[in-house]
Amino acid sequence: MTKRKQPGGRAFDRVLPPWAVGKAVEAALAEDLGIAGDLTTDAIFAPGQRASGRLVARGEGIVAGLALAEAAFRALSGEVAFRVRTRDACPVAARGVIASIEGPARALLTGERVALNFLGHLSGIATLTGRYVEAVAGTGARIVCTRKTTPGLRIFEKYAVRAGGGLNHRFGLYDAVLIKDNHIRAAGGVRAAIAAVRAHAGHMVKVEIEVDTLDQLDEVLADPVDAVLLDNMAPAMLAEAVGRIGGRMTTEASGGVGLDTVRAIAEAGVDLISVGRLTHSAPTLDIGLDFD
Amino acid sequence: MTKRKQPGGRAFDRVLPPWAVGKAVEAALAEDLGIAGDLTTDAIFAPGQRASGRLVARGEGIVAGLALAEAAFRALSGEVAFRVRTRDACPVAARGVIASIEGPARALLTGERVALNFLGHLSGIATLTGRYVEAVAGTGARIVCTRKTTPGLRIFEKYAVRAGGGLNHRFGLYDAVLIKDNHIRAAGGVRAAIAAVRAHAGHMVKVEIEVDTLDQLDEVLADPVDAVLLDNMAPAMLAEAVGRIGGRMTTEASGGVGLDTVRAIAEAGVDLISVGRLTHSAPTLDIGLDFD
Amino acid sequence: MTKRKQPGGRAFDRVLPPWAVGKAVEAALAEDLGIAGDLTTDAIFAPGQRASGRLVARGEGIVAGLALAEAAFRALSGEVAFRVRTRDACPVAARGVIASIEGPARALLTGERVALNFLGHLSGIATLTGRYVEAVAGTGARIVCTRKTTPGLRIFEKYAVRAGGGLNHRFGLYDAVLIKDNHIRAAGGVRAAIAAVRAHAGHMVKVEIEVDTLDQLDEVLADPVDAVLLDNMAPAMLAEAVGRIGGRMTTEASGGVGLDTVRAIAEAGVDLISVGRLTHSAPTLDIGLDFD
Amino acid sequence: MTKRKQPGGRAFDRVLPPWAVGKAVEAALAEDLGIAGDLTTDAIFAPGQRASGRLVARGEGIVAGLALAEAAFRALSGEVAFRVRTRDACPVAARGVIASIEGPARALLTGERVALNFLGHLSGIATLTGRYVEAVAGTGARIVCTRKTTPGLRIFEKYAVRAGGGLNHRFGLYDAVLIKDNHIRAAGGVRAAIAAVRAHAGHMVKVEIEVDTLDQLDEVLADPVDAVLLDNMAPAMLAEAVGRIGGRMTTEASGGVGLDTVRAIAEAGVDLISVGRLTHSAPTLDIGLDFD
Amino acid sequence: MTKRKQPGGRAFDRVLPPWAVGKAVEAALAEDLGIAGDLTTDAIFAPGQRASGRLVARGEGIVAGLALAEAAFRALSGEVAFRVRTRDACPVAARGVIASIEGPARALLTGERVALNFLGHLSGIATLTGRYVEAVAGTGARIVCTRKTTPGLRIFEKYAVRAGGGLNHRFGLYDAVLIKDNHIRAAGGVRAAIAAVRAHAGHMVKVEIEVDTLDQLDEVLADPVDAVLLDNMAPAMLAEAVGRIGGRMTTEASGGVGLDTVRAIAEAGVDLISVGRLTHSAPTLDIGLDFD
Amino acid sequence: MTKRKQPGGRAFDRVLPPWAVGKAVEAALAEDLGIAGDLTTDAIFAPGQRASGRLVARGEGIVAGLALAEAAFRALSGEVAFRVRTRDACPVAARGVIASIEGPARALLTGERVALNFLGHLSGIATLTGRYVEAVAGTGARIVCTRKTTPGLRIFEKYAVRAGGGLNHRFGLYDAVLIKDNHIRAAGGVRAAIAAVRAHAGHMVKVEIEVDTLDQLDEVLADPVDAVLLDNMAPAMLAEAVGRIGGRMTTEASGGVGLDTVRAIAEAGVDLISVGRLTHSAPTLDIGLDFD
Repeated sequence: MTKRKQPGGRAFDRVLPPWAVGKAVEAALAEDLGIAGDLTTDAIFAPGQRASGRLVARGEGIVAGLALAEAAFRALSGEVAFRVRTRDACPVAARGVIASIEGPARALLTGERVALNFLGHLSGIATLTGRYVEAVAGTGARIVCTRKTTPGLRIFEKYAVRAGGGLNHRFGLYDAVLIKDNHIRAAGGVRAAIAAVRAHAGHMVKVEIEVDTLDQLDEVLADPVDAVLLDNMAPAMLAEAVGRIGGRMTTEASGGVGLDTVRAIAEAGVDLISVGRLTHSAPTLDIGLDFD
Repeated sequence: MTKRKQPGGRAFDRVLPPWAVGKAVEAALAEDLGIAGDLTTDAIFAPGQRASGRLVARGEGIVAGLALAEAAFRALSGEVAFRVRTRDACPVAARGVIASIEGPARALLTGERVALNFLGHLSGIATLTGRYVEAVAGTGARIVCTRKTTPGLRIFEKYAVRAGGGLNHRFGLYDAVLIKDNHIRAAGGVRAAIAAVRAHAGHMVKVEIEVDTLDQLDEVLADPVDAVLLDNMAPAMLAEAVGRIGGRMTTEASGGVGLDTVRAIAEAGVDLISVGRLTHSAPTLDIGLDFD
Repeated sequence: MTKRKQPGGRAFDRVLPPWAVGKAVEAALAEDLGIAGDLTTDAIFAPGQRASGRLVARGEGIVAGLALAEAAFRALSGEVAFRVRTRDACPVAARGVIASIEGPARALLTGERVALNFLGHLSGIATLTGRYVEAVAGTGARIVCTRKTTPGLRIFEKYAVRAGGGLNHRFGLYDAVLIKDNHIRAAGGVRAAIAAVRAHAGHMVKVEIEVDTLDQLDEVLADPVDAVLLDNMAPAMLAEAVGRIGGRMTTEASGGVGLDTVRAIAEAGVDLISVGRLTHSAPTLDIGLDFD
Repeated sequence: MTKRKQPGGRAFDRVLPPWAVGKAVEAALAEDLGIAGDLTTDAIFAPGQRASGRLVARGEGIVAGLALAEAAFRALSGEVAFRVRTRDACPVAARGVIASIEGPARALLTGERVALNFLGHLSGIATLTGRYVEAVAGTGARIVCTRKTTPGLRIFEKYAVRAGGGLNHRFGLYDAVLIKDNHIRAAGGVRAAIAAVRAHAGHMVKVEIEVDTLDQLDEVLADPVDAVLLDNMAPAMLAEAVGRIGGRMTTEASGGVGLDTVRAIAEAGVDLISVGRLTHSAPTLDIGLDFD
Repeated sequence: MTKRKQPGGRAFDRVLPPWAVGKAVEAALAEDLGIAGDLTTDAIFAPGQRASGRLVARGEGIVAGLALAEAAFRALSGEVAFRVRTRDACPVAARGVIASIEGPARALLTGERVALNFLGHLSGIATLTGRYVEAVAGTGARIVCTRKTTPGLRIFEKYAVRAGGGLNHRFGLYDAVLIKDNHIRAAGGVRAAIAAVRAHAGHMVKVEIEVDTLDQLDEVLADPVDAVLLDNMAPAMLAEAVGRIGGRMTTEASGGVGLDTVRAIAEAGVDLISVGRLTHSAPTLDIGLDFD
Repeated sequence: MTKRKQPGGRAFDRVLPPWAVGKAVEAALAEDLGIAGDLTTDAIFAPGQRASGRLVARGEGIVAGLALAEAAFRALSGEVAFRVRTRDACPVAARGVIASIEGPARALLTGERVALNFLGHLSGIATLTGRYVEAVAGTGARIVCTRKTTPGLRIFEKYAVRAGGGLNHRFGLYDAVLIKDNHIRAAGGVRAAIAAVRAHAGHMVKVEIEVDTLDQLDEVLADPVDAVLLDNMAPAMLAEAVGRIGGRMTTEASGGVGLDTVRAIAEAGVDLISVGRLTHSAPTLDIGLDFD
């Protein structure tokens, strides 16, 4: 397998963890099949009949989640052949063929909706991420996702953001510290909050802190942590903040970032721009299964 | 508990199944907490500290999923008091308070994101559904969802559609028959497909068939089933179809329905309009947790 | 795979869902093996030894559940060859060979009881169902099962009823409406109950109502639903009811149906006769494993 | 809680393990409710409505499984009051009240079938066991069950046999050794088989061996184990076997034991008579839920 | 597969139950991989790269748990070839090669720690057991483990004790009776306790009783059970006890048994010596994975 | 709850995650109880009997795991009162009382072994950790654990290390990068490996690298990461390394650290000393349950 270029020109060699794929697909099939199964397909297709078709994009976008789509069909029959025509992180044109499938007709028709629900949802995220990535092209800023993900699908949505050319923020509450406004207030100030997390967290845990004002930022700069989240600042204030930080911490901008505003934010010089809507509001990429 | 009026003026008395709520919340917390838990909050808040706050809508919409939000906090501490200020299926204004919470500070901060991820996602679906429902107000048409749901969340998303004033189509492949184009082709025609499902399905299973043309419709009318899905027909053709059917089957329109086109479709006289984007592309309703 | 004729002369092409089979077999093996495994077999047979034998019916009946029996052996060793000599829904004579097996001796002896417990139980249900089906042969009535199934085995028992030539009623509370006496009383009458379910249930859900008297039936006939359950009526009253209904609803008789009474009920002209004992009281079909 | 007398005059103080009860009930409810829940009851009863009723036996028998019935209702609502009027292992007359229940109407109607499926099945086993126990009353023989149980329900069925006055054989392949004909053949004879299990099994594991002939029995007697299963022997041969054993091993008769033959077997002097049909072929005890 | 000689010169033909292996390995991998997987290895190795290496003992000991180590790698990739160079229950010298592996580099590096954690832990138990077995060589005493195992790993630890040449005591509270001091006191004495368990336990359940004094022993001898646990007795008293028992019960010594005291205990003539530290305090056997 | 001082004089306010506690206890009870439960206790104690006792240390140490012990008893009966007499992270003297319990006798006797297995194992780890912490007292070095934990118990063992005064390293492969020798070789050198992980890992992920020589260290110092693992270096070389690093990275020593060598390593000036045997070879702390 050769390395692919993903949006933004970087190689993409991530793999969806097979155990997560298997479990998610099994749950989704159970949800759709209940215990009685596919009443319609079972009535019309005999067990031995075969069929073939193609997964086709109805609009242009970036593909993500092929392993889930394949797994959905193959969970229903080991005889399904799923041949990818493109790969995750690659663009697909409207009417572009994403994969061709062949196998028992029952498996193809019964698995169709689950396969497309996964593929459309994740490709939708990759596609929207790709738009943000393009919007900041040429600046030094990278697009990152947040923990505002769909419950149960975080590992897949984080992967889709990478497929779209974005980066991942922390995966959960457990793998990094992010001190927010309520933490600062409860601790009695920026310095106290930083001291508390340093005493508590292990040496392999990075610390980021959210600041809303330049005064807060100055407090942090007296004792810098690994990263600073500049929340809801206008581009001019962002630029001022970035200047004060002077490379001593990773800088991240957040707060109501849209496709119309993201480039100005990027040009303020931040390292990262986090965008909640990548995962909580991306519309699906419309993909269909055309049978031969 | 008195009956509520939901969008469209109908009462809403559905309850999210507690077992599904518990399981989904447990999985979402596991996803966010890993095994090390909330590194930030545990560092700053002592186990005994308490806090309080309010769930506040940042924009207007329709609320759905309060039981999931409450369960997220209460799974972390039995001492959390969650007091609803509105209810599922009710509208909330921008800056409107949805619920107030009080309890151990650790539970409130640690549960915040999971609670909001559920509540924002489902309220987003209810809100979008409500817009479609309003758009067809005064016609005889009802808005229904599809099986294009987020894997693992179907029961919740179907509920959110109801909270928004919509109706639910079948829940899965197992509880009703929907004969689609590929089934018709495989069976060798409309009549053969209908015969096959009648021979196979039990007497308590309803049968719907998708038709793309008036000729196909005429075939169905020779031996009507329970419902007919009129796929991708322009309003004029829909009206013609509805006329030919003459009340002998429930009529449903589908295919690329948008807020701009839905009223014209409704006015063609169909009983139901199914809209995939209610569940696959609804943006989140922005809701925050403001601590006191 | 060619279509089989099942009791009553109809083809049988159902397949037990592989995921349900796998899960049930795994649970049954865990129940029988605990964590220490088969103390006796492990003491006597070396891991490499092989054995072969045949599953033999000790009495005549109808076979159901071969996939579960095969899965029980194969879960213990992928090297087990399980060769069916008949198929689900087919009759077997006393001393008839159902399947032959060959493989590691440990797997065959350890899996024997789990395989036979499934196969005997389901074949018992198919066999009893077949007797009822024969008893009504030549009338227009079909035999259907109920929700009075063994907890955890419904999908398998529903399948066994089909293998015996019967039909399935609804699979659970979730896939169809059945308004019973307590619902009618609580709603304040037949008409109110029907109105309530129509307002609540989706358009793809069928509605059946239970009536105990002809007066109740007349109320239903004023606004017919999909099916009517004529509960505990003598054949003469059934015939009267069927006459009044005149084909406007599917008719189902129920209540204390025995092999001695079922034909008279069928001759009253009902479409369906539901029999609880098919699933809650069928004696096992005695099947043994004879080693070579 | 005072000790109860169970059939045969012995005290009964067993308790169904709560974790097994919870898990089985949860699975049974999931099977019956799917994800859409009880369409009928939810349509007709508002969340706040209450109801009450009684579990009533339609025929006489011995009760078993009250904890499962209670758990089924209480899993649906913590507000259900379930008041037992009798207890497991006690006889109930036709039309006898087994328990009264009061609580939210939705929980009572939705839980009814699951509660009755468990209670009827286990009470059916207790009832049939009680008949066998009575049939051997006054002899020294006790009735025991086998591993021919319904997959997934063994712990409950073993309990029901005890409630009916019977004893339990081993619970699985893991807690005792039972050397059968195939083991003897594979080991190369009775003596070799016994030697193998002695070398393999721990010192806390009992050993029983099945013999079909008096010659085999004599081989065992040269080196007795804990118990001997006298398979398919007529009463006269059983008596001869019991005499030869002379109290050196527990004696168990098995093989096609019916209510008509069991007393003669008991009078042959065996300690135990194992009866497969207690668990694989007991008809349900008909129990209904009468609402007030 | 030929029979192996294990420490103490006995053959070893036990097999770790594949389902337990699969489940434990899956849980251990989930614990180590979270949802983001192996950040280091995924960054450095491309999906297609391959690697090979050897599992090497850093000190001498007895191997146990190869199936778990193999399963850990193979759960990550079906392409991993795991070739054993020795087998469970066999001694390994310091620097001895236990197995060689070849396959995708990602799977080898990611699975390494889980594989070694299982293998080192179980080999540590086998090794310590082997030392006790050697210490009593030539006496009639056998070494047995207790229920003092690591939660969740009992089946594996019991197996490791067998691999080290020891025997297993009961597997849990469910497969044999062991009457301890608190039971005796609660029952009102040795005789009452024995009577109670005889009335309660099935005929396939062995009974052992713990005694602290010779007086208690004499009480037991008036009505012997299957085995007696002589708790915390000095060798002289043990010898006296063994003499009084005269072969009528299996004898087991327990209580603070160390490598320095075990031989004297064995020479007192007991059948079994149970040693808690085999499973609760065995240090790991240091095993590493050397890549080529 | 006031903050406790743990070994080393620091406050300890960690809480075992309740969901992890519940799940681990449930699994451990299932392992010990099978489906038949506690044969001995159920035979001797009536359901209503009560008992009380104390958890008593047989040797001195540091307590860890009280929440698991309590949960084991309470999972068996909600009526158990568990009163702690000390707390996790506190020292206990030989014969010191750790907790007193009162409740249904069945729950206390049946839960005893599971409670003690958890408590003894984790207290053993805390106790051994405390010895290492004391051994380096007064130096700047802290003791940290590794990923060499018992499969399935990592969260608990990491907690026990903290209770003993140690720190935690990364929790798994997913929350931090640790570049080891094989990674360096595969990447083609220290610099290439560091570049690869920087390109791959998110901005919230810390990076540590293992070096075996001072030359390797110099390579790292040309482009420092967050931490450096100085593997198997003698104290003199460690001191040299620490000097070269000059505070630019966190320093960690590892490799065969014993209680006899740890102080010399600490005095070389490293920040952290990682000790595998804290979790893979700590002997249990002997704790018993003395009934009143």
